Amino acid sequence: MKQKIAVLGPGSWGTALAKVLVENGHDVTIWGREVDQIAEINQQHTNQHYLPDLLLPLELKAEYDLKTAVTGADAILFVVPTKAIRSVAAQLVAVLDTKPVIIHASKGLEQGTHKRISQVLMEEIPADKRQDVVVLSGPSHAEEVAVRDITTITAASKNLKYAEYVQQLFMNDYFRIYTNDDVIGVETGAALKNIIALGSGAIHGLGFGDNAKAAIMTRGLAEISRLGVAMGADPLTFIGMSGVGDLIVTCTSVHSRNWRAGDLLGRGHNLQEVLDNMGMIVEGVSTTKAAYELSQELNVEMPITETIYKVLYEGADVQEAAKLIMLRDGRSEKEF
Amino acid sequence: MKQKIAVLGPGSWGTALAKVLVENGHDVTIWGREVDQIAEINQQHTNQHYLPDLLLPLELKAEYDLKTAVTGADAILFVVPTKAIRSVAAQLVAVLDTKPVIIHASKGLEQGTHKRISQVLMEEIPADKRQDVVVLSGPSHAEEVAVRDITTITAASKNLKYAEYVQQLFMNDYFRIYTNDDVIGVETGAALKNIIALGSGAIHGLGFGDNAKAAIMTRGLAEISRLGVAMGADPLTFIGMSGVGDLIVTCTSVHSRNWRAGDLLGRGHNLQEVLDNMGMIVEGVSTTKAAYELSQELNVEMPITETIYKVLYEGADVQEAAKLIMLRDGRSEKEF
Repeated sequence: MKQKIAVLGPGSWGTALAKVLVENGHDVTIWGREVDQIAEINQQHTNQHYLPDLLLPLELKAEYDLKTAVTGADAILFVVPTKAIRSVAAQLVAVLDTKPVIIHASKGLEQGTHKRISQVLMEEIPADKRQDVVVLSGPSHAEEVAVRDITTITAASKNLKYAEYVQQLFMNDYFRIYTNDDVIGVETGAALKNIIALGSGAIHGLGFGDNAKAAIMTRGLAEISRLGVAMGADPLTFIGMSGVGDLIVTCTSVHSRNWRAGDLLGRGHNLQEVLDNMGMIVEGVSTTKAAYELSQELNVEMPITETIYKVLYEGADVQEAAKLIMLRDGRSEKEF
Repeated sequence: MKQKIAVLGPGSWGTALAKVLVENGHDVTIWGREVDQIAEINQQHTNQHYLPDLLLPLELKAEYDLKTAVTGADAILFVVPTKAIRSVAAQLVAVLDTKPVIIHASKGLEQGTHKRISQVLMEEIPADKRQDVVVLSGPSHAEEVAVRDITTITAASKNLKYAEYVQQLFMNDYFRIYTNDDVIGVETGAALKNIIALGSGAIHGLGFGDNAKAAIMTRGLAEISRLGVAMGADPLTFIGMSGVGDLIVTCTSVHSRNWRAGDLLGRGHNLQEVLDNMGMIVEGVSTTKAAYELSQELNVEMPITETIYKVLYEGADVQEAAKLIMLRDGRSEKEF
């Protein structure tokens, strides 16, 4: 059934998801703050900075006034950077005229509080102003979804009825949705895998080969699963689409900006140079800080995260750090 | 302590492992049947067909007489193709003059019997003629080990004492060994991941992108874990080095011959053309048959393996088959 949907955040992923929804016959408005970008989407039907050379569906509307964007919405999809989630949610509450399903496809943890994005959304949007909050996550480069390459991801909510509603909204011949009820596992997998993507990129930038990259990804998966489980996740979720699937695509594909940031770190650039060079949000950088602090708090051993934290925030030498982490003493595989 | 070690099988992996052992100070003889290749290793110190342009250590000896090769051996490492394991083990028994530790680094299942390699070795080499059998496996392209790129793998035996002995033999600054006591999990992971590498290569050859490749790897990991667990493995082993680690390196690296064979299949070549083109053993082709038969016997759902089986052995159209597998109905992630 045709639904009215507002997509908040016209970055690469928000735009690609909005395109899927339009192609599935829904009435879709994408909201953003940049007047020029909104005009470009409405008039040229492009979003050159985020998805170069892609012609967007003519039916996709863009809007910079939040109230107009969300009026009458059956569902609202958040795809804004993690650090903007709380303030956008607060603005939304002031203008809501429906009780929509809330969906989010952002990947991170709130700085300071270390909260998951669905926790922040539930805090800011009172239960009587919304239906359930559903998380959408999985191995999915926006660039590939935008050109209709087959993609498989997960929709998670505690109440499976809402995950199935989101599955129906997005599902088509090239975009395949599985449902899951482990919101914590899907959200922590999505956020934490960006740390390992930074590490995997750094290993590449330092000149290591595919064997070393597979080793860091495997040990990385183990440590992000440990933290996720300590936060309440089901360990099985980490071997699903939003865990190992997303880890693989983020750590091995040229499209991944976290991987590219890590690659620059490995080549000897410092954090500021890397961020200047990227020109887009690199969620893994702040997620590393949140995860490091959480690992201390929850007493979870995370040697890779700790190493990346020291390189990013304490100026540790990347080459020395990588050597230390790769040459840790051999021991039983089940201990690490 | 310096050990006398015979390496059976002078392919890429056997040669790279023999090189590691020589560099660790051991007395190493590599055995093979091809007189010209043995002479090349002894005289030119190269093995051009398998590791082009690599100069081998001068101390590495090669030998085509099995008895001479294994005389006085403290350890014997099997790195022959799966189909040759039983006959080489039987020949070995007839000439053994020590009671060596048996190690193997081969990846497959015996055709017909569907036995794991350590089972075949234990059957053919009576317990009074050997110590324990240890499996060596993990994400490790021979080409990278040969040039001393950092590599991390697993040594597994029921009796950890022997896994630790093998760890000591191989461990150095670039070759890192973890131990594990789940022989079944390590052996089945090593064998079955080649099926998913064929599938991942085929997905690439057909023109799909990174999102689809990550999806097939994730669902592939789930189905090979299911079969492994039905065979007696610990499910946790599949998220370790010999499981997901080896899967990642085999499915994403240009060095993998199973991936390359799958890529050719995806481009429309039939099985015979692919095998003619490769010029080396592609273990995944026979492993697909063994795993498909086992899945029927043990009643384990393996949709990807079944699809590849039909393409390889029943002439199914690769494009149609891929479409069917990628477009299966969405459902709960924990069902698949």
